[in-house]
Amino acid sequence: MFSTLASRVRRPSLMSKVVKDPTTLLPLFEDGMYMGWSGFTGVGYPKIIPIMLAEHVEQNNLQGKLKFNLFVGASSGADTEDRWAKNNMIDRRYPHQVGKNIQAGINQGRIRFGDKHLNTKDKPKSHNLDVVIIEATEITEEGFIVPGASVGATCELIQMADKIIIEVNTKLPSFKGLHDMNFYHRGANRKPNLITRVDDRVGMTSIPVDPEKIVAIVESTRSDATTPSEPMDESAALISGHILEFFAQEVKQGRMPASLPPLQSGIGNIANAIIGGLARGPFSNVRVWTEVIQDTFLDFFDEGKLDIASATSIRFSPECFDRFYARWNDYKDKIILRPQTISNAAELINRLGVVAMNTPVEFDIYGHANSTCVMGSRMLNGLGGSGDFLRNSKYSIMHTPSTRPTKTDPHGISTIVPMCTHVDHTEHDLDVFVTEQGLADLRGLTPRDRAREIIDKCAHPLYKPILTEYLELSTKACMKDNMMHEPHMLRHAFDMHLNIKDKGTMRIEDWNVSK
Amino acid sequence: MFSTLASRVRRPSLMSKVVKDPTTLLPLFEDGMYMGWSGFTGVGYPKIIPIMLAEHVEQNNLQGKLKFNLFVGASSGADTEDRWAKNNMIDRRYPHQVGKNIQAGINQGRIRFGDKHLNTKDKPKSHNLDVVIIEATEITEEGFIVPGASVGATCELIQMADKIIIEVNTKLPSFKGLHDMNFYHRGANRKPNLITRVDDRVGMTSIPVDPEKIVAIVESTRSDATTPSEPMDESAALISGHILEFFAQEVKQGRMPASLPPLQSGIGNIANAIIGGLARGPFSNVRVWTEVIQDTFLDFFDEGKLDIASATSIRFSPECFDRFYARWNDYKDKIILRPQTISNAAELINRLGVVAMNTPVEFDIYGHANSTCVMGSRMLNGLGGSGDFLRNSKYSIMHTPSTRPTKTDPHGISTIVPMCTHVDHTEHDLDVFVTEQGLADLRGLTPRDRAREIIDKCAHPLYKPILTEYLELSTKACMKDNMMHEPHMLRHAFDMHLNIKDKGTMRIEDWNVSK
Repeated sequence: MFSTLASRVRRPSLMSKVVKDPTTLLPLFEDGMYMGWSGFTGVGYPKIIPIMLAEHVEQNNLQGKLKFNLFVGASSGADTEDRWAKNNMIDRRYPHQVGKNIQAGINQGRIRFGDKHLNTKDKPKSHNLDVVIIEATEITEEGFIVPGASVGATCELIQMADKIIIEVNTKLPSFKGLHDMNFYHRGANRKPNLITRVDDRVGMTSIPVDPEKIVAIVESTRSDATTPSEPMDESAALISGHILEFFAQEVKQGRMPASLPPLQSGIGNIANAIIGGLARGPFSNVRVWTEVIQDTFLDFFDEGKLDIASATSIRFSPECFDRFYARWNDYKDKIILRPQTISNAAELINRLGVVAMNTPVEFDIYGHANSTCVMGSRMLNGLGGSGDFLRNSKYSIMHTPSTRPTKTDPHGISTIVPMCTHVDHTEHDLDVFVTEQGLADLRGLTPRDRAREIIDKCAHPLYKPILTEYLELSTKACMKDNMMHEPHMLRHAFDMHLNIKDKGTMRIEDWNVSK
Repeated sequence: MFSTLASRVRRPSLMSKVVKDPTTLLPLFEDGMYMGWSGFTGVGYPKIIPIMLAEHVEQNNLQGKLKFNLFVGASSGADTEDRWAKNNMIDRRYPHQVGKNIQAGINQGRIRFGDKHLNTKDKPKSHNLDVVIIEATEITEEGFIVPGASVGATCELIQMADKIIIEVNTKLPSFKGLHDMNFYHRGANRKPNLITRVDDRVGMTSIPVDPEKIVAIVESTRSDATTPSEPMDESAALISGHILEFFAQEVKQGRMPASLPPLQSGIGNIANAIIGGLARGPFSNVRVWTEVIQDTFLDFFDEGKLDIASATSIRFSPECFDRFYARWNDYKDKIILRPQTISNAAELINRLGVVAMNTPVEFDIYGHANSTCVMGSRMLNGLGGSGDFLRNSKYSIMHTPSTRPTKTDPHGISTIVPMCTHVDHTEHDLDVFVTEQGLADLRGLTPRDRAREIIDKCAHPLYKPILTEYLELSTKACMKDNMMHEPHMLRHAFDMHLNIKDKGTMRIEDWNVSK
């Protein structure tokens, strides 16, 4: 049952800005413009205008001739940014992306991708945005914007906008009351953020916007193109088990409260498994301070073990969104959505003593991690908030299966390598690594002790002897040269990676070092 | 003219803890103990007890038999930690060090060095400290400790101490009033730090301490073993000039205030040249939020251009300490010394919008930097506060000469390399690189654009063609493989480094890639 547009645009004077036919807005758009969209992890992004522009390009063969510099809090949808990428409509893209075509565009060198922390520092050189398009679920009587299931960078994009287009989604319920909009003053003499507990509310429930900047309001009845969550596999279940056991130990030692510190968990299979494990686990009155709320959070709430979740986005599968809307009143007071400058703020992650958990591409024996570039060069989705959380959390945990398959070897890639081909998180910031094999607690260990612990606890049995031999040969070589702090053989540090191209696997037979 | 000990120990009951002969404290010390010292960058560290222990080891041939796990805010002195290293008295050493022998011990694999951010996150696994030794310049009537020219980790060490020994230095003036001791509550539900301006004072001028933990008070008349500052060379002067010109441009563009944002500058030659340049420069009412106050700060004050400097340590040459003490009343209200958890707090560096400037070992064409490990393995001094500042500042700037000499080639080492052999700071965090050749402003640039800018502006002319060829060959290779985000050739990424061992220079003749 859809609402009427008038019931969602509560400021009567703004009804005059409603545009029935979005194609009449085409003259607003020019090649080379800077554009911002609402949205975060594929929810709450604008659809009507981006799809209209994509159709315009496709129908008039304008591929590569109408290109934009596109800024979105995190990823948008397959029906928008990925379709734009396919149409060669994107020049620059910041700061995070998801989609087959956009990845291809970046790695073919067509799209210039700026891989930034989601809580990007306020950079004074930043460009104004010519047009910002925001999906809203309501416009209040004051003319303020109520977003939907994500906040992301919407507050900051509005501050930087020359012109604003609002897509009011009447298919979604109004999310009014779920948000806490407390966005940073961007200049000098900023005051402290007063949030000290996960459930603190310090801001407004909607976003003020200059009505003179609003050039159009359009109605939308399109859904976010979210996908069903992946089924849990055995490896994710084992990882989840190791982490819950670690938590139990920390509680037993008196280092964690019985309700655990506030938790951050990343996106995907393993993150979902951890939250699912917690839903069935021994901890109650848990609080979550994270970026994204995923499917298994509903179970966690339903089991009565999760008290409150603060995030910048709710990214459910279509099925779980239905479940969420059906029991809106049961969940609405347990979720707070904030701007990503707040969810990912160093100040708050640090103050709250968050436990951060994320999945890397690979990590190395000394505890550096690569979250972005396969083989040092091929971009996946970008850093996202992993750096914000891992750098500032009280516990920083990285989890991944110990191997991934290649075309010819089901264990062709070891996610534990001698040296990362790209470093996004350094040894100085990471405390704990977990694979299906086990958990390595690196706190208080120096590099060579860390290497032994990582290989021993986390590496796949097929790779243990290979990595151990690298460590031993490196140690021997560096002892001769008095460089024993973090032993490496620069000539061989990437041999396992190079072997993939030659032989389809990281399982090298010999380090080819004279012993 | 020395003070009497009684005039500095203002709480009469504590005079009963005074120990005349420090050797009577020998029974307190056992092999394997965890020990903390006050001190930061070679000032304010205890001398009497560490030197007594060193003499004990030397006189009784106990080298390697009486070893300690040693925690100091940052570095201590040549007469203490370095002498200990020579005597093989150090097992673990955290989180920063300076000294020929301690470096040698780490790189020979004898000393286990934990290279940590100076504002290390509160790690719940951390060990109690058996004995903590603090240098003070006064003990107040309440029995609280007034440190000298550094605060560093003293507050936290005292919180973790089982036993405390205080060395009261009667040769130094009392520093009472210079400090602002506002140290973090370490548990949950911490409140915001209320500092919003460089000159805010929110704490006490001395450190509370449990009198029952004080096992001894000894008098000290030893000076810190600081060294004269290095003379400015041409390269440092050029770098300083580029940075001042950049500031002037930013002010002109309206992106910086005319008094500049609060400045952080690192330690050494270039940092001293920058501050010296500012003392003669066009900016006034400048404020400094940094770790260490160095010699040229006195000129900056004397020129009337520096309003206030907040730091955790004053590290002057002996000559400048004399100048400082002689005009104590002129300087005392313009300097605030804080704990390193405050000077280096992410929350505050971020809120104040600091400009951070530090020197790396090397940086790469895509903008990653190595601050610690030469050739990926050989430890210099450690990360220090560089990560705290560069990650959280509004402007993050790295400066270094474009080349360094080897034994056979005056330009044998390029500080700009294809890929860093160790990454401490990532491309996501660094804005500007400066060498004597010029300044590369990377804000808003994507990796391949950054590489061109860095090579063009910063690389030494001898290395420009070599690095350009690496970029071009890598781009060609990665284009074929669709990995164009950050092109590399993993097989050749360290060829310049490997060439040093073979031929004494990074000037390679050929990349040996089939073209």
